[in-house]
Amino acid sequence: MEEQIDLVGKAFADHYYHLFDNDRPALSSLYKPSSMLTFEGHKRQGVEDITAKLTSLPFDQCRHVINTIDSQPSFSGGIVVFISGSLQLPGEEHHLRFSQMFHLIPMLEGNFYVQNDIFRLNYG
Amino acid sequence: MEEQIDLVGKAFADHYYHLFDNDRPALSSLYKPSSMLTFEGHKRQGVEDITAKLTSLPFDQCRHVINTIDSQPSFSGGIVVFISGSLQLPGEEHHLRFSQMFHLIPMLEGNFYVQNDIFRLNYG
Repeated sequence: MEEQIDLVGKAFADHYYHLFDNDRPALSSLYKPSSMLTFEGHKRQGVEDITAKLTSLPFDQCRHVINTIDSQPSFSGGIVVFISGSLQLPGEEHHLRFSQMFHLIPMLEGNFYVQNDIFRLNYG
Repeated sequence: MEEQIDLVGKAFADHYYHLFDNDRPALSSLYKPSSMLTFEGHKRQGVEDITAKLTSLPFDQCRHVINTIDSQPSFSGGIVVFISGSLQLPGEEHHLRFSQMFHLIPMLEGNFYVQNDIFRLNYG
């Protein structure tokens, strides 16, 4: 069970950042109307507002490199996933360190959607 | 409602780190048998194992300085709280940056306990 949680967390993180870095509008498929995003302190709710925020960030291209992934089961069959890593922007010599947490809720068919999403850059 | 969530998150964070820095064994009051902690990748479950981990860290004195607190309501009346800050150890010139997330679950009497707790230092 514990290993399965870790596998789900890792598969989700790989999928999420692959979409973010290669087809950012497709991230909308991971959210629901009840979903909440707090991105650097800015709050958004629902598929449209969240997707609008993520696709209007002041950089078009980026690459996420995952450093750590910690996953735990939550109540009602959900999973909390906590990720740390770095964000590489084109032309920037220094990487930006970030931390992000997701609360994933199971749907039918064995998939999960993102109910809670909180992102912060880690300034040194 | 949104402001109340933020207030609860802030009150919890202040309380948690005050206990951590001044009376670490008392953190046991915030956990339940179902609670889970992942501290720098090490997994613990339940009040005793979590408290044993937190009170056996390789430093006796420390001070947490909170940088950001982001809170969101979760399903079933819970709250997810995401904190970034720095950890100051005696005799250490450099602060350690950290990120931590909590999933708080309501109890009777308006209090919350920690169901999920994930802590990571941010190396960079």
